[in-house]
Amino acid sequence: MSTPPSHRTRVRRVAENAAYDNAVVHAIVDDAYVCHIAFTDDHGTHCIPTACWREGNHLYIHGSNGSRMLKRLMEQDVCVTITLVDGLVLARSAFNHSMNYRSAMIYGRFEKVPDDDKPATLATFMESLVPGRQADIRPGSDKEHAATTVLRITLDEAACKVRAGGPVEEAGDEDYPAWSGVLPLTRVRGAPETAEGNAAPVPAYVLDWQRRA
Amino acid sequence: MSTPPSHRTRVRRVAENAAYDNAVVHAIVDDAYVCHIAFTDDHGTHCIPTACWREGNHLYIHGSNGSRMLKRLMEQDVCVTITLVDGLVLARSAFNHSMNYRSAMIYGRFEKVPDDDKPATLATFMESLVPGRQADIRPGSDKEHAATTVLRITLDEAACKVRAGGPVEEAGDEDYPAWSGVLPLTRVRGAPETAEGNAAPVPAYVLDWQRRA
Repeated sequence: MSTPPSHRTRVRRVAENAAYDNAVVHAIVDDAYVCHIAFTDDHGTHCIPTACWREGNHLYIHGSNGSRMLKRLMEQDVCVTITLVDGLVLARSAFNHSMNYRSAMIYGRFEKVPDDDKPATLATFMESLVPGRQADIRPGSDKEHAATTVLRITLDEAACKVRAGGPVEEAGDEDYPAWSGVLPLTRVRGAPETAEGNAAPVPAYVLDWQRRA
Repeated sequence: MSTPPSHRTRVRRVAENAAYDNAVVHAIVDDAYVCHIAFTDDHGTHCIPTACWREGNHLYIHGSNGSRMLKRLMEQDVCVTITLVDGLVLARSAFNHSMNYRSAMIYGRFEKVPDDDKPATLATFMESLVPGRQADIRPGSDKEHAATTVLRITLDEAACKVRAGGPVEEAGDEDYPAWSGVLPLTRVRGAPETAEGNAAPVPAYVLDWQRRA
């Protein structure tokens, strides 16, 4: 599904890289561990990073009940941005260098997830981070759930920009004798590190961490 | 050197992870390919990702002369945030899960880099991305430099948060029979991909890409 861009999400710079498909937004949110949220308060404009996850067509965040930021996010329209850098693009001219990346900008207002839905959505968060983990751990207590606020924002008003592939050269540069190509950057999962003093057998979902697609 | 936090940079949540040292800010900026910038205009609050680099105690960005954003960034105080995710921290309880990360928030106003300084600072940008590259490529022309705006912001008003190490358990959870530890996430440099039709010898600095610290 594709929604037409709003005045806030219409991409003006390098517009040929723009995408407004839900599927593109969903894939970018699913591949991100954190998002950056721009909002304002009496002290000015802020850009705060926080963990995020997706359920359906919403992006979710969580935090402490006492958080100043979470209160502000329900009182104003904000912008949530995710950026995944995939590589450096080296053209023959300095000017035509670029990056390969996938980014999503989401506009809207956060709403509070009802208390009754918190345990299930926090379990979804855990499973999105480490599939299989939720069944293994001490679940949240009523007190812990009460101390946690979960917010969500619809992905209805979102714009993505995606660049992939090799360099685009200026006309006339094709014969310039410089190497050109892509230097890839990838996020890689490292070997699990067991906490000091923990003698529990390493579960399959931890052994699988490095093998996950 | 450490500067005292301002009312905007004093970290209130998990304050024991806060750092205000220039050396910590510099290391985070140097390890980042992109930053996120929060600013406002007539359409609301925005959070835009853009490439960044550092010279001395300033963070630099660049863009097209026609960019709406660059104009706005010189007219208001903004917040520039960099976040590097280093791993998932798995505690025995859902509630005590966390992430290892390094983040920097910088407050201030961007200023324009004078035209005469643009070629040198753009060369510094190139060298920070790929050391050795600048000498190999077609340098920017006067027309290309004229089409490019370079802005910088001082790192004087910055706060970092850094979390590293294993999980911190709730008292009483130490004997819960769940695996605990860290699942690392690392940014890795992939094998260089030569552009189609480019027959130039692969230079040493490209061969070194994957070996760089």
